[in-house]
Amino acid sequence: MVLNKTENVKCNEDIERERKKCSFDPLELTHLLDGSPEKTRERKEREHYFLSDPELRDTIPQDYLSHKEKYEEAVRKACILFRKVTQLRDKGGDLEIFRQTLSGMLGSAILKDGNPFTLHYVMFLPTIVGQGTVEQQAEWMGKAWNCDIIGTYAQTELGHGTFIRGLETTAHYDPRTQEFILNSPTLTSYKWWPGGLGQTANYAVVVAQLHTKGVCHGINPFIVQLRDEETHKPLPGIKIGEIGTKLGMNATNNGYLGFENVRIPREHMLMKNAQVLEDGTYVKSPSDKLTYGTMMFVRVIILQDMAGYLSKASTIAIRYSAVRRQSELKPGEPEPQIMDYLTQQYKLFPNLAACFALRFNAIWLWNMYNNVTAELEDGDLDRLPELHALSCCLKAVCTADAAQGVEICRLSCGGHGYMTCSSMPSIYGLVTAACTYEGENTVMLLQTARYLMKAWQQAVGGMAMTPTVAYLKLAVSGNNNPQYWENSTVCIIRAYQQVAAGKIKMCAENMDRRIRGGISPEDAWNMTSIELAQCAEAHARAIIVDKFVESVVELNVSSALKTVLRQLSELYAVYWLLQKSGDFLMYSDVSARDIPSLQNWLEVLLSQIRPNAVGVVDGFDICDEILSSALGSYDGRVYERLFEEVSKSPLNKQSVNVSFQKYLKPFLKASL
Amino acid sequence: MVLNKTENVKCNEDIERERKKCSFDPLELTHLLDGSPEKTRERKEREHYFLSDPELRDTIPQDYLSHKEKYEEAVRKACILFRKVTQLRDKGGDLEIFRQTLSGMLGSAILKDGNPFTLHYVMFLPTIVGQGTVEQQAEWMGKAWNCDIIGTYAQTELGHGTFIRGLETTAHYDPRTQEFILNSPTLTSYKWWPGGLGQTANYAVVVAQLHTKGVCHGINPFIVQLRDEETHKPLPGIKIGEIGTKLGMNATNNGYLGFENVRIPREHMLMKNAQVLEDGTYVKSPSDKLTYGTMMFVRVIILQDMAGYLSKASTIAIRYSAVRRQSELKPGEPEPQIMDYLTQQYKLFPNLAACFALRFNAIWLWNMYNNVTAELEDGDLDRLPELHALSCCLKAVCTADAAQGVEICRLSCGGHGYMTCSSMPSIYGLVTAACTYEGENTVMLLQTARYLMKAWQQAVGGMAMTPTVAYLKLAVSGNNNPQYWENSTVCIIRAYQQVAAGKIKMCAENMDRRIRGGISPEDAWNMTSIELAQCAEAHARAIIVDKFVESVVELNVSSALKTVLRQLSELYAVYWLLQKSGDFLMYSDVSARDIPSLQNWLEVLLSQIRPNAVGVVDGFDICDEILSSALGSYDGRVYERLFEEVSKSPLNKQSVNVSFQKYLKPFLKASL
Repeated sequence: MVLNKTENVKCNEDIERERKKCSFDPLELTHLLDGSPEKTRERKEREHYFLSDPELRDTIPQDYLSHKEKYEEAVRKACILFRKVTQLRDKGGDLEIFRQTLSGMLGSAILKDGNPFTLHYVMFLPTIVGQGTVEQQAEWMGKAWNCDIIGTYAQTELGHGTFIRGLETTAHYDPRTQEFILNSPTLTSYKWWPGGLGQTANYAVVVAQLHTKGVCHGINPFIVQLRDEETHKPLPGIKIGEIGTKLGMNATNNGYLGFENVRIPREHMLMKNAQVLEDGTYVKSPSDKLTYGTMMFVRVIILQDMAGYLSKASTIAIRYSAVRRQSELKPGEPEPQIMDYLTQQYKLFPNLAACFALRFNAIWLWNMYNNVTAELEDGDLDRLPELHALSCCLKAVCTADAAQGVEICRLSCGGHGYMTCSSMPSIYGLVTAACTYEGENTVMLLQTARYLMKAWQQAVGGMAMTPTVAYLKLAVSGNNNPQYWENSTVCIIRAYQQVAAGKIKMCAENMDRRIRGGISPEDAWNMTSIELAQCAEAHARAIIVDKFVESVVELNVSSALKTVLRQLSELYAVYWLLQKSGDFLMYSDVSARDIPSLQNWLEVLLSQIRPNAVGVVDGFDICDEILSSALGSYDGRVYERLFEEVSKSPLNKQSVNVSFQKYLKPFLKASL
Repeated sequence: MVLNKTENVKCNEDIERERKKCSFDPLELTHLLDGSPEKTRERKEREHYFLSDPELRDTIPQDYLSHKEKYEEAVRKACILFRKVTQLRDKGGDLEIFRQTLSGMLGSAILKDGNPFTLHYVMFLPTIVGQGTVEQQAEWMGKAWNCDIIGTYAQTELGHGTFIRGLETTAHYDPRTQEFILNSPTLTSYKWWPGGLGQTANYAVVVAQLHTKGVCHGINPFIVQLRDEETHKPLPGIKIGEIGTKLGMNATNNGYLGFENVRIPREHMLMKNAQVLEDGTYVKSPSDKLTYGTMMFVRVIILQDMAGYLSKASTIAIRYSAVRRQSELKPGEPEPQIMDYLTQQYKLFPNLAACFALRFNAIWLWNMYNNVTAELEDGDLDRLPELHALSCCLKAVCTADAAQGVEICRLSCGGHGYMTCSSMPSIYGLVTAACTYEGENTVMLLQTARYLMKAWQQAVGGMAMTPTVAYLKLAVSGNNNPQYWENSTVCIIRAYQQVAAGKIKMCAENMDRRIRGGISPEDAWNMTSIELAQCAEAHARAIIVDKFVESVVELNVSSALKTVLRQLSELYAVYWLLQKSGDFLMYSDVSARDIPSLQNWLEVLLSQIRPNAVGVVDGFDICDEILSSALGSYDGRVYERLFEEVSKSPLNKQSVNVSFQKYLKPFLKASL
């Protein structure tokens, strides 16, 4: 077993003292987060199964390797990893293994800089399932599932990301040979970014503009073989490679791909939805909405991952802040633990609270997703727009907050957070990427804003409102006389909704005014878009606070644990209110005289959370191998671990580097 | 000559069109920023002298190298670089050459991941000058200046950064041999972080606790030889190495250093201030304040560097936003340049404005620094606390804003900003480091807050106020009746000062209340510290806006250029007002009904700046070699350059990577 809490670990004394003063049982929190004690046991067994394998460990930390070496190590480890996954699956394990090994926790502990196989499992396989006919599934699923072939998903192009209708890759149907001919007509039409595409995958689902009988029918998916299965050489007409180094995820092997008259059989077009018949006749898809499902599923996963990454960063920063001592509060007294500085608590604890905010909202969105999917199967599409709007704004706000939160945690560790052995830089690399992929955040917010503008019209028109925008009703009915304010979550949640409603209303009015003034709706939309993005953010914050508070209230846990979680939910709500105090003064019952008492409430909550902070991150139960941080390990032996880490640097293996004789000595002796 | 604007460069059409609609002459801006046409010419000549040297260019972009290779390349290039610098100097060049080659512009273009020699020039040499006696300068300056030896500056320890009184390294004086004995009594006492310390330097100025005659006299600087001058082997008792990979600056060779009974001659203690006599008698320094000078000088340099880095990021993001086309504003129309989206302008232009805000404030602080230094030499210390307080809060706010600004610019480039060939990740690595080094930002803000609390007491006591806090007078005299608000910089500057004064006053009252309630002043300080840091930030913002607006007003330039700079200064002022609208509603003449018109002013300014945005960044005149970005080059040939960049990846040199035969093929064929 991988155990954090072995009997014989000698812990740092400060962190031991923190654990003694904790008012709740961190194990109860662990069980809550896993779902049950049984699930905790299963998770830890699974972690042990992978993490105890010496072949999956680094001999030299990968940060010291060259880009090429990093990739080769990643392929080596990915092969071992998925061999083990397959073995578990064949022994009757569930599909959750894939989720875990591809995730931000276990997965990124083994392949710290990304996994070149991820898109095979996350996109290639699901696309065949989702968009292939029964015959196509029969042909391709077995091969893909058994890893006889390895695939990726090639949609984004060098010049086209957000706007998929603008994709340029073409697939022309040739009825004579019953083949499609793929081409990349321009530089900007090259596929760019797909993970595993560079040197790894030998197949891809390629999204291209379908042309048949002289007509373009828009984008459709095609299975394309990229490399010879025996030699791995690129097939004729395939121009392929990787796109080079990045801020993070340097082992994902993101690639580019161009086509020059590449012919594929007609049967390689995935035809569950649209079809091309032998003679080239195009048969339209019955509905487009069906593809929404995958997109929304991915966004739920992103929320979960963000919660995980922020939990890692919080664990590292809080444990380090318990161990690190610096400066003086009172002359002559010993240097205090830096966590005793209120300014440090102000950096750490709102982000600790955000871990739970993100997690509980991910669960809530997941449940809603399942409900709506069930309704969909009964032909009921009513709640799809609401779900789509929610998934967009929550994706945007949660990834942006998580990225900012990870950086605040990193900076709270001072210079040591800048070292890669803190793990903070790589966590940031993973989190900030999510601000861009799967829907760029500003684009996401504006999609939600479009829904909110419609919802506002419905509210004004007196129509029935779906639950998450029901608060607009109150704003329409002119709830204008300020209500009595008290520092309670009831008042705060109402205030968040007032802010969202106020901003939505203002956007609707600004749009209206502009259109009435003769501006086209499209231009009016662009001119109002700063405020539109902000109203979508306000909507997301109202949802997040509401669902966080509600989830904590409904929990069936000990009162000791519940108290801590309630404090965290209140801290989250008050923190973001004060961050956006201008909006609350403009649109809610909060008045200028309430701000000092809210600031006081914030400070009281920080001091209440202080003694339990280490206990809460212990409750996350992220084992040292997954944390992979010299600053954050369970035993708090920060300085010893930093020395262990630097001893791994290849530069430190020799007392004199070769550059001394080659360059430095001639330079230093030049003037003598 | 390095020329951006050669006749025969074929530019992207969109960016050419941008240049045609520019309403001012970018060259006038370039001359303004350099100081004169003559200085522009000199700068470009110097850039050419270094950048045209093929030996200083990378064959393979360093991001592809291993950590060890990166270091060896950096030493090679640093030797060539400083040989060229020495040649220039010997031909009569001024010391500005050092400044340029060590700076964020030219310096970081050649040594993109940091320079292992920097601390030799920036800290080792100046410390000998500043803290050595005349005899010591005579002995060491020649050697250091001619690079017979190469030094670094070792102050920070593994467990001690901010609080230098807490340093643990000891230097015990032994009168028998007239030597100091250096020791590292604990793990946390190891020196940690000094640049060049790992494998490069053979000498260091080491800061240690001086013990003599059984008494500890606090920290003092000592010159210590670390490595043999011939073999470069560490001397006996010296435990030395590098600290490993980091978020950025991986070629600076930051190191650690421990001592085990290392003996150095008495004369190696730098004795310009304190002294130890032969018999071990300690002679105190006449004044501590003299060391403030260097610290403040470094902070001015940091401000200048932040302006430079943000200018690079803005140039890249704005040129890319002129070239990139995406989505649709109106159905059926071509995809617009992304700079035409108001939300994109909202990301780019406030940061463009910040480039000037930082630059003008750096100049202003530099002038003040020189004035105060001149006064100092006349024995007048009056304005030193004010200067110190300003340098602290400006350092904190400017580094934090620059870091956030660079990230906003990076994210505004979508996925392509995540690629290292955009240069955005390395710019961020350099900028975010400055949030921590030379005074951690929260510590900096609290130092300013301490000054502001005293200033408030002086204002309340009716004393004369120094210029930068004179606005407190108004707040004391109870300027409580709100004045008429109009959208003008006069009103805005007053509002910024009202906010700062309001927050300073509130902090003073909260401190007072707590102390009157029986809380010790130290605990009251900690309990008020969130608000204290915020009041220092508000003070900094009031200064920055005021000096930015004032500097533009005073400029002697064409009205075309002045208009653009005025728009940028107004945008900066309005943007930060709206970012902090809660504070303005609480403490200034701004009322809720003014917010929509301020938002409107912001939007008008964005649209006014839009046609000149490319012209402004052209005016920065950062040549392609310094920008080093596929997204930001002068010709706007983004996609062509991205392909050129990826062709340099070693992984793309072979059609099949070795990992296929070794790992992937056995894995894929396992189930067959």
